[in-house]
Amino acid sequence: MYRTHTCGALRAANVGQTVTLAGWVQKVRNLGAMTFIDLRDRYGLTQIVVEEHSSEETRRTAAELGREFVLQVTGRVIERESKNPKLPTGEIEIAADALVILNRSDVPPFTIEEESDGGDDLRMKYRYLDLRRPPLQRALILRHRMAHAVRTFLDGEGFLEIETPYLIKSTPEGARDFVVPSRMNPNQFYALPQSPQTLKQLLMVAGYDKYFQIVRCFRDEDLRADRQPEFTQIDCEMSFVEQEDVLEVFERWAKHMFREVLGIDFAEPFRRMPWIEAMEKYGSDKPDLRFGMEFHDVTGRVKGHGFGVFDDAEYVCGFAAAGCAGYTRKQIDALTEFVKRPQVGAKGLIWIRVEADAVKSSVDKFYTPDEVRAVAEACGAAAGDMVFLMSGPKLRTLTQLCALRLEVAQQLGLRDPKRFAPLWVVDFPMFEWDDETQRFYAMHHPFTSPKPEDVPYLESDPGRVRANAYDFVCNGTEIGGGSIRIHDPKLQAAIFSCLGFTPEKAQEQFGFLMNAFKYGAPPHGGLAFGFDRLCSLFGGSESIRDYIAFPKNNAGRDVMLDAPSAIDPVQLDELYLDLHTTAK
Amino acid sequence: MYRTHTCGALRAANVGQTVTLAGWVQKVRNLGAMTFIDLRDRYGLTQIVVEEHSSEETRRTAAELGREFVLQVTGRVIERESKNPKLPTGEIEIAADALVILNRSDVPPFTIEEESDGGDDLRMKYRYLDLRRPPLQRALILRHRMAHAVRTFLDGEGFLEIETPYLIKSTPEGARDFVVPSRMNPNQFYALPQSPQTLKQLLMVAGYDKYFQIVRCFRDEDLRADRQPEFTQIDCEMSFVEQEDVLEVFERWAKHMFREVLGIDFAEPFRRMPWIEAMEKYGSDKPDLRFGMEFHDVTGRVKGHGFGVFDDAEYVCGFAAAGCAGYTRKQIDALTEFVKRPQVGAKGLIWIRVEADAVKSSVDKFYTPDEVRAVAEACGAAAGDMVFLMSGPKLRTLTQLCALRLEVAQQLGLRDPKRFAPLWVVDFPMFEWDDETQRFYAMHHPFTSPKPEDVPYLESDPGRVRANAYDFVCNGTEIGGGSIRIHDPKLQAAIFSCLGFTPEKAQEQFGFLMNAFKYGAPPHGGLAFGFDRLCSLFGGSESIRDYIAFPKNNAGRDVMLDAPSAIDPVQLDELYLDLHTTAK
Repeated sequence: MYRTHTCGALRAANVGQTVTLAGWVQKVRNLGAMTFIDLRDRYGLTQIVVEEHSSEETRRTAAELGREFVLQVTGRVIERESKNPKLPTGEIEIAADALVILNRSDVPPFTIEEESDGGDDLRMKYRYLDLRRPPLQRALILRHRMAHAVRTFLDGEGFLEIETPYLIKSTPEGARDFVVPSRMNPNQFYALPQSPQTLKQLLMVAGYDKYFQIVRCFRDEDLRADRQPEFTQIDCEMSFVEQEDVLEVFERWAKHMFREVLGIDFAEPFRRMPWIEAMEKYGSDKPDLRFGMEFHDVTGRVKGHGFGVFDDAEYVCGFAAAGCAGYTRKQIDALTEFVKRPQVGAKGLIWIRVEADAVKSSVDKFYTPDEVRAVAEACGAAAGDMVFLMSGPKLRTLTQLCALRLEVAQQLGLRDPKRFAPLWVVDFPMFEWDDETQRFYAMHHPFTSPKPEDVPYLESDPGRVRANAYDFVCNGTEIGGGSIRIHDPKLQAAIFSCLGFTPEKAQEQFGFLMNAFKYGAPPHGGLAFGFDRLCSLFGGSESIRDYIAFPKNNAGRDVMLDAPSAIDPVQLDELYLDLHTTAK
Repeated sequence: MYRTHTCGALRAANVGQTVTLAGWVQKVRNLGAMTFIDLRDRYGLTQIVVEEHSSEETRRTAAELGREFVLQVTGRVIERESKNPKLPTGEIEIAADALVILNRSDVPPFTIEEESDGGDDLRMKYRYLDLRRPPLQRALILRHRMAHAVRTFLDGEGFLEIETPYLIKSTPEGARDFVVPSRMNPNQFYALPQSPQTLKQLLMVAGYDKYFQIVRCFRDEDLRADRQPEFTQIDCEMSFVEQEDVLEVFERWAKHMFREVLGIDFAEPFRRMPWIEAMEKYGSDKPDLRFGMEFHDVTGRVKGHGFGVFDDAEYVCGFAAAGCAGYTRKQIDALTEFVKRPQVGAKGLIWIRVEADAVKSSVDKFYTPDEVRAVAEACGAAAGDMVFLMSGPKLRTLTQLCALRLEVAQQLGLRDPKRFAPLWVVDFPMFEWDDETQRFYAMHHPFTSPKPEDVPYLESDPGRVRANAYDFVCNGTEIGGGSIRIHDPKLQAAIFSCLGFTPEKAQEQFGFLMNAFKYGAPPHGGLAFGFDRLCSLFGGSESIRDYIAFPKNNAGRDVMLDAPSAIDPVQLDELYLDLHTTAK
């Protein structure tokens, strides 16, 4: 037995007890003849004191200690002279009778405290040391608690967690697969799942009724910030359900999570916003509703006044930034530069400053003050507000204005990570047209069912068909999404045809699922949540990496393990593989 | 809303209610003007009755139904005339007012009942239909319940479930890795983890104190019966612990599992058996303690009587099969053939039939009756028993006698899957000598700590060094195992040296772990349980496949998905890979 208590356990009530603690040396301070040691473990920090009258051996050991040494301390719990109210153990300290160095430590390459002085690369290389820092420990403890809350809730609702295989079949839709060469089946490859989508649908065909799984997924994509080649989903599917049934269960689930993990109660139902409304009001299918600044279509009002930019535009829209009438020219110029950045791609920005007795705008020469005021009011502005307008093709303009809205909100401090504004976005379009390949793609995936009333347009006007698809959105982030699936083989065939799959190609790629559907597929649907992202949302951090114990860097490398790496030629030969060094 | 109740919900108390059910048609029987339909879902089976006075449409729909059609039924709950006490819903039936065919089904390729008439291959191909069968549904429900019980217990003990990466670095010890070519890092490969062993040790270095994970592991081995290329472990690790601390927690865990899942209480502590005792008494490091038939060393007693086989043998041992004195010559011959099979590899079998007034044996010409009786009594035999003796090199003989012991017990019906005899096997040897490569291998793994008292023999006599290693065994199966790890870099270096690793090789392969250990590694240890096997143990089945939703066959293929399969040459080129078709 190495310890009687953890470093977070002792309180004033323990004074007088003889205890043994073990942990890491956070800090050593010598004050005259006394030595104070901060001993740290996952549970907390306890102050150890080596006094003048401690044994010579104890004093000698104390003198040897360095940061991150692993130390075992036996001593008496005593009341502290100067209490530390910030520390749960701050009322007591341990008067050390014996110190045992369980392990030594080289000087760590960065400080292991609340904030570290180490750069990103160094902390990734020594991830096991970075993981000792309290913010990362809190993040992984939060993740554990959240996973447990997910499981407890879904278990209580009759969902079964069923593990699906990681070595599956490569499918062509979606992102690029990671593949795994098979030694026993030469020249053949498994794929790692991008999601267990087809497998969970097979489980519905198999009658499992309510399935979930907290499951790793893999995508071999070029990595952007906050994308990891392996990531975790909460994957769910239900049988004999319509969209409303799925939203009902998972809205309760989400409220359970907010309550259990964060102590936040949502009494009201979550807002349900059709996709087209989300796009027109917020320029995004994942609107941030922590603040207003809704968009307003002013196309009709602003056209025909000789301002060519608006006259030529398909769409003109704007929003009112409340209380921003005082923005300086410099601030407005900075926002104009912001929307002109390639990531946003706008040509410019029109503004209207609204004061009680006057309006001023960057287009005053084309409109009367009354006209300008009317436009501002149409955008919901009142005195003291600033209106921003953008124009161009409809969807592009909305998207660009969305970037501006978020930037302004960020500057105004409206994107408070401690506030949560969840909603469902519903009624997604079924298909997206891709100009490059001149075909429709499934916006969600090819098994998503169309709204029954839109089925007649599948052939004549696929772009207008809406899907039984839904996203769970919070604070401008898509946390999850799903759909009611197609269970009718004829309808599935029609969708594949819309997507340009020949029956042969569909059979080749999805044959096992389509065959399964011949044997009594129940109506079913489900959804999946990004667990890493959900953790970072709840934890209030921008970075999902903080919530992953051993993440990969932007080149897909684990720099701590030094993976990926070269492998033995014997191993390659067993897999019937040769390497070439340049693309063909 | 597709249903008001599941097919397992309705009871006599519901009589008179109008309900809607949905499920699969298990069976349709026409009895005169009445049609009876068994409707099945995950929750149970409910009888539907279509009567003479049902609407014509309902009767027409009923006439169309086939096996495995997906059907929605609305009707009144009525009391059944002939109740079925075997069925929880057996007191009622539904008088159908409306039948809606939600989906049709082709005739399934095998019967979907408690027992199926389908062969293994067919059932694997149509796994989604086999998974509809009640035994498989019970198996996956059991697995879900067990996983949840594991998590709830360990969460309550302060363990954190921390997800470790699946794309890691290839390591040379142990089995063959599955590898994953990296597109972003050409000519380099990730490996899929055989276990998160090093990662969990890094989590201990990182101060997480108590870790667990229910995690998939991967081994590219030639498959034997009941081996899967991907399998699931309950992986656990603790800091500041000695062997006794680990066994204490996980013995409580195991008792919790037996109680929660099976309702079985183990009041007594589990037996702790040193490895050498397990080998000498049962010929196995995973003894089946559901029955006795312990081995006894009679080498000294039987030598020197002119029976050459014994005289030349290093070791002679035997056990008494209680009540088997009546075995016929034919039965004994069959057992002799059994031990001579290549899988067992013995040369022969000596037997002693013990009756109250006489003994008879196959070696009567070398021994007096008193001598024979003394040998039999030394083996624990009483009147009515049969003693079996084998001889040869010690360990080989013990192992061969173990196979016979299990076979005899099987024939006697002593291997009752409803009885459980758990134990800990402890004090494993540190190393195993391999004649072929002329080196020692780590019996557990190279991070296992030796018993402190045996450290002096590391250089002089490695074979005698015992490890702080332990296995959890039940009913002749190893369910889990682990060890206290080495946290002292100097001791770790000495072990690598025993294993024939040069310091450079050790650095290359385990550098990240050894480097991490320089920064204050706590004393730590843990263990891992085979979750698939634990499920099959609790479920009383021999086959772990029944407890895996989508298992692979003996060629490592998923015949349902048709994986692995060929991939697109473009994909290969992106990975800088060429294929060759024959080994070089």
